[in-house]
Amino acid sequence: MLENALEHARSSHTRYLDQLIELLRIPSISTLSEHRADMERAAGWLADEMRRIGFHQVAVMPTGGHPVVYGEWLGAGEGAPTVLVYGHYDVQPVDPLDLWDSPPFEPQIRAGEVYARGASDDKGQAFVHLKAAESMLAANGSMPVNIKIILEGEEEIGSPNLERFVVEHNDMLAADSCLVSDGRIINRDQPSIVYGLRGMAYMEIRARGPRRDLHSGTYGGSVHNPAQVIAEIIAALHDENGTITIPGFYDRVRPLSDEERSALAEVPYTLEQWQAETGLKQPWGEREYTLLERVSARPTCEVNGVWGGFQGEGGKTIIPAEAGAKISMRLVPDQDPHEIASLFADYVRKLAGDQVELEVIQHVGAWWALTPLDSPEMQAASRAYEAGWGVAPVYTREGGSIPIVATFQKELGTPVVLMGFGLDDNIHSPNEHFNLDHFYKGIETAIHYYYQLAGRG
Amino acid sequence: MLENALEHARSSHTRYLDQLIELLRIPSISTLSEHRADMERAAGWLADEMRRIGFHQVAVMPTGGHPVVYGEWLGAGEGAPTVLVYGHYDVQPVDPLDLWDSPPFEPQIRAGEVYARGASDDKGQAFVHLKAAESMLAANGSMPVNIKIILEGEEEIGSPNLERFVVEHNDMLAADSCLVSDGRIINRDQPSIVYGLRGMAYMEIRARGPRRDLHSGTYGGSVHNPAQVIAEIIAALHDENGTITIPGFYDRVRPLSDEERSALAEVPYTLEQWQAETGLKQPWGEREYTLLERVSARPTCEVNGVWGGFQGEGGKTIIPAEAGAKISMRLVPDQDPHEIASLFADYVRKLAGDQVELEVIQHVGAWWALTPLDSPEMQAASRAYEAGWGVAPVYTREGGSIPIVATFQKELGTPVVLMGFGLDDNIHSPNEHFNLDHFYKGIETAIHYYYQLAGRG
Repeated sequence: MLENALEHARSSHTRYLDQLIELLRIPSISTLSEHRADMERAAGWLADEMRRIGFHQVAVMPTGGHPVVYGEWLGAGEGAPTVLVYGHYDVQPVDPLDLWDSPPFEPQIRAGEVYARGASDDKGQAFVHLKAAESMLAANGSMPVNIKIILEGEEEIGSPNLERFVVEHNDMLAADSCLVSDGRIINRDQPSIVYGLRGMAYMEIRARGPRRDLHSGTYGGSVHNPAQVIAEIIAALHDENGTITIPGFYDRVRPLSDEERSALAEVPYTLEQWQAETGLKQPWGEREYTLLERVSARPTCEVNGVWGGFQGEGGKTIIPAEAGAKISMRLVPDQDPHEIASLFADYVRKLAGDQVELEVIQHVGAWWALTPLDSPEMQAASRAYEAGWGVAPVYTREGGSIPIVATFQKELGTPVVLMGFGLDDNIHSPNEHFNLDHFYKGIETAIHYYYQLAGRG
Repeated sequence: MLENALEHARSSHTRYLDQLIELLRIPSISTLSEHRADMERAAGWLADEMRRIGFHQVAVMPTGGHPVVYGEWLGAGEGAPTVLVYGHYDVQPVDPLDLWDSPPFEPQIRAGEVYARGASDDKGQAFVHLKAAESMLAANGSMPVNIKIILEGEEEIGSPNLERFVVEHNDMLAADSCLVSDGRIINRDQPSIVYGLRGMAYMEIRARGPRRDLHSGTYGGSVHNPAQVIAEIIAALHDENGTITIPGFYDRVRPLSDEERSALAEVPYTLEQWQAETGLKQPWGEREYTLLERVSARPTCEVNGVWGGFQGEGGKTIIPAEAGAKISMRLVPDQDPHEIASLFADYVRKLAGDQVELEVIQHVGAWWALTPLDSPEMQAASRAYEAGWGVAPVYTREGGSIPIVATFQKELGTPVVLMGFGLDDNIHSPNEHFNLDHFYKGIETAIHYYYQLAGRG
């Protein structure tokens, strides 16, 4: 049965890739309201695909924002485990568009990679599970486990409506475990399983000063320039070591144990890899932590955008009336994203002084997550990688945030396994891509995982 | 003769205003290359107008950038003084466009003001002198002095080609004195003559870090974020008192004498006026200097624009590959704009650290200027205001920069009189406007000035 499914997957590479390319053509950018119709189109396309594969109860379900796509196949019966598979069909914005070598929504294959926005994050990885299911159902007419699939459309904007959706559809989504493929492995030859994710508080600040842009010759020297205020706030968020200076920020941070630091030290994440991916020479940041610890196990605070005044060609001599910045913090156990947002707001208001009006907005508040290493699901995932990828995985923590993981743990009471198939892949950047070999190996690894979970590996 | 000219001006208000409105319709934005044809159109329009009024040798003269418009009337003969009148026909950009109550190049009259980009800075004020000349020539067939008019098209981008033009056309421009109307008076009832102008060093900095935007979850905490670097640089340019921290910045600043501080204290520039114009409550900046000293006699450093990363709706979790800022410094005697640019560059390069590549660009380097109060031209200007405006002027310094004033002093060896007719007028901001009463009074004051200068007032 397992071999039939694997064989079916192998003989379907061309067709599966063509289908993925079709999905990647839909510009489903969740954060931009002008793409609302594209979001609907992507959801409808996926629902049709699930029906065709053989899922039941397939529906595009409304939320307060973009819809959820749901489908299930429960033919393995009550004696078999039920897995809830999560993915997202929304993608990041594409700017700066001029840095793309090919248009972000006209997928191109170059050197064994498919280039398109969403290729890796997360359409390509979510599609792996649809194709694993298709391979099992087409080859055998059945799967070894019951599978429920939920694909959301708001992951890139912080999943503002999914927690409520999960709470309201608790029965529908009930499962023995969850599986999420929305991440990366260490490198081509070293798969890894993420057991920890960071949470997030995504903030925006806007400083309003004079009622209009002022001539900097006529008023310069008498006004606390809003762009300067924003700069002063940003500059005051870190000390010279890269340590965050928001009072109370580290109060609830659970110290890394010696055991965990030793385990992380085993992960083959090298300086050379970081250098190749960033184009930089030496890492910046907290000297007392390793590079991997900084990007995965330590909380951070990053400026995602800043603006104010004249950005055009040449010169314009003004004091801008307004300036602003987007700043997001990645959080670790046991930080509370709502408490951190509040500490941030208090601090930046104090820094702003009294000549500007400072508005503080919270876009996202998401919890961190940790998954026990000794659960049967984690062990099944380890054996699946060994079989599908040919190498046993290492365990690591990831710097990104998948808010839904914490929600699944809390609301459904299930362990969540994070099975990534991507690499760096330029996600969130121009020229996002996904390796075709990873796509095909991912499908086989997923098939192995479902058989392992059923004790039939 | 004087009375005939004044009478002609008074009876021509409607026609003169209609002509000004025609000029204001031309979007002559010098800093944006897409307006190159509009610049040519504005220059041609002014040349036609000068010919019609009765000027000779009228020409649109090429420079390395936008052309100069020149014309002369030398009919007063060698025994009479020759005045070189300077103005500029280029205007500032118009963004943010959505804050204009009427389109910037569709002039509207509201409550005795004409609203349009360039209404006050400087088309309206330059046009005053064309209309003064027209009134004298139409009424009397002659003027009491010889007048040469030079209108440039690059004042708003720092007059990069005018110094060379003046040097190359030294003979053509030879005069006994220069007159510039490109400024403001204290308030409607208190004219003022500016005897000091600030110089400028306009800089742009660009910090380049990772080779592309990075996912802030995957790399946050390991990269010296370019937007943070720009913010750190901006924040480090002032101390808490608003004093500039660039090493050596104040070394050549000539201290304000007690006499000068007393004279400036006499200028009726009030906190209430500043509050009304800015919409702010309390001034910021160097506590040891008065408000007027801060905005006119002290050097300053202002952020004119800042940018980097995601500026759109919602959130995007990136570390931007690049960020930048435009920063201009206003300079006072005896600061050297080129030396200051170099001190700035050294300082910001040191602040940037070693993880980003910092590019430092200088857009403008302009000298400050001071004019002797006891020259016959300054005395004539004082009497002209008294006659044309009805009130004797006070003497003050201005915070803005008119690079050409220093060039005229140096290259032509003439005193330069700065005769402003504007108020704050939202120059460089949305809803720029010019008071019609100032336009008409300006024409009469200019006529008085020319007669005063000839000893026929």
